[in-house]
Amino acid sequence: MSVDYSALTLADIRTAHARIREHITRTPVLTSARLDALVGASLFFKPENLQKIGAFKARGAANAVFALSAEVAARGIVTHSSGNHGAAVARAARLRGLTAQIVMPTNTPRLKVGNVEAEGGHVVWCEPTLAARETTTARLLAETGATLVHPYNDLHVMAGQGTATLELMEDVPNLDLVTCPVGGGGLLSGTAVAAKGVRPSIRVVGVEPANADDAARSFKAGQLVGPTTPNTIADGLRGALGELTFAAIQGHVDDIVTVSEEAIIKAMRLVWEHLKIVIEPSAAVPVAALVEGLISGVAGQRIGVILTGGNLDLDRLPWQTA
Amino acid sequence: MSVDYSALTLADIRTAHARIREHITRTPVLTSARLDALVGASLFFKPENLQKIGAFKARGAANAVFALSAEVAARGIVTHSSGNHGAAVARAARLRGLTAQIVMPTNTPRLKVGNVEAEGGHVVWCEPTLAARETTTARLLAETGATLVHPYNDLHVMAGQGTATLELMEDVPNLDLVTCPVGGGGLLSGTAVAAKGVRPSIRVVGVEPANADDAARSFKAGQLVGPTTPNTIADGLRGALGELTFAAIQGHVDDIVTVSEEAIIKAMRLVWEHLKIVIEPSAAVPVAALVEGLISGVAGQRIGVILTGGNLDLDRLPWQTA
Repeated sequence: MSVDYSALTLADIRTAHARIREHITRTPVLTSARLDALVGASLFFKPENLQKIGAFKARGAANAVFALSAEVAARGIVTHSSGNHGAAVARAARLRGLTAQIVMPTNTPRLKVGNVEAEGGHVVWCEPTLAARETTTARLLAETGATLVHPYNDLHVMAGQGTATLELMEDVPNLDLVTCPVGGGGLLSGTAVAAKGVRPSIRVVGVEPANADDAARSFKAGQLVGPTTPNTIADGLRGALGELTFAAIQGHVDDIVTVSEEAIIKAMRLVWEHLKIVIEPSAAVPVAALVEGLISGVAGQRIGVILTGGNLDLDRLPWQTA
Repeated sequence: MSVDYSALTLADIRTAHARIREHITRTPVLTSARLDALVGASLFFKPENLQKIGAFKARGAANAVFALSAEVAARGIVTHSSGNHGAAVARAARLRGLTAQIVMPTNTPRLKVGNVEAEGGHVVWCEPTLAARETTTARLLAETGATLVHPYNDLHVMAGQGTATLELMEDVPNLDLVTCPVGGGGLLSGTAVAAKGVRPSIRVVGVEPANADDAARSFKAGQLVGPTTPNTIADGLRGALGELTFAAIQGHVDDIVTVSEEAIIKAMRLVWEHLKIVIEPSAAVPVAALVEGLISGVAGQRIGVILTGGNLDLDRLPWQTA
């Protein structure tokens, strides 16, 4: 394998793009004069809700699965995820003619289970605790010799997630800043390494819910701090940084800012109204930071925004009161 | 002017595209394996909700406004619309450095008024009756010598609407069928002339709410029949065919089918869920016909679907019961 396990590089991300290109959607770039006026900058949105399985996770999972040798892949692919990563791994495995095993807690919403099953994934249930998830995953790996595709703390996954920014910067030259949400940090790692690699003068800012701010605290402290109990509507961002993602973020990210739950919901609605796309709360997080003026020095700048996904229950929307 | 006022031609639509290209968004093509499986065909969606002002109407209005000579344009531009066409004309006029007058009934939803004003349009209020609308419009035209840009019964407008299909057929070769909604018939006229012009073997099917079926009845009768009182959630399709649109439709459309209100709402939700985009009820109408199996002979075919727009009130969604 060509990936250097000491650090993620632009070359890894370019290799990932060549590898996964035929298996993913090249998402377009969207703009809105109304949102530009609101923020006072030129915004270029990369709508990964239009990506396969409705989220950027299709990129990293495809890169990790297709990077395996045929022999290793044949021993099986396992992941644990209650979210979009599970469907992404299931899909990538299916495209290689394999069936991935997806460890999911028994309290996973029916919608997410259905997304995994629709992609041909085999759901392995576990109790809804971290210990049960780790035990179940370890047992599967030991029994089968399968490969674990971690949701974010994996250089192939991180490289795959960076391909969204690679495409955005091909389509939109001269960006001054790129921003995306941060949960486990796979997307922010790939985004930062891609952006700084292509254009060293660019700024990269991650945005996190204030109610799930382990990445912001770790970034400021200069060391990994344990997560508190996250309580945010942005359910895709409840994970905590890993060692690999933290290293990439420390090396390449300029700042991490945090936003309130109210700002997330307001920004989500603004995107639905003005870009006419369905995004999940997690995807609205960087938009919230821009609308609330929490990222400094953006006036008049050209800003790339990665919109992460659009998988949510449409029965009730967050701005609808009971 | 180069347009032949006797009938719409492919050349008119190509001229329109060259004229408006720099003023509109080239919308992408979206696909969904899940929707393909549901219909049993390969669907290629043209998401005009991502168009400027959130609807295909930006195309026709831009073509009509930019086709005017500077001298004629300077005398003013007037239209009447309670919907997306008003915002489209306001925007096109603004791009020419002019202010359009938009006649709107006093019961127009606040959202639509806001869209016109955001594009710099000047709203002229009238009582919410057909007579008041016509009187007010006629008075404005007489007072100022302005030009009326009719919402659909205008060859420049029809030609502009056809540019969506021109782009779709450039991006997706070998379509077997194209389908779109029909209200006043501007979009269906342009769609049919563009599609048959580029590929004579293609089928073109219009879809209309059963509760606003004047086009289907006129098409079957071979003559324009008066509208009944439309009562449909697809508020963009309440208009009745005009002479010019009826002629184009008679000459180039293979069939017009109708769908129920329930099917429209179901299809709208399917598009939100699987394509991750916000479309208004009117845009879901052709999707409803495909999902319900109301268009014959589509099994295994390659089908283009024009999704017309995404302007609606997000406070309450049609599938949400009280």
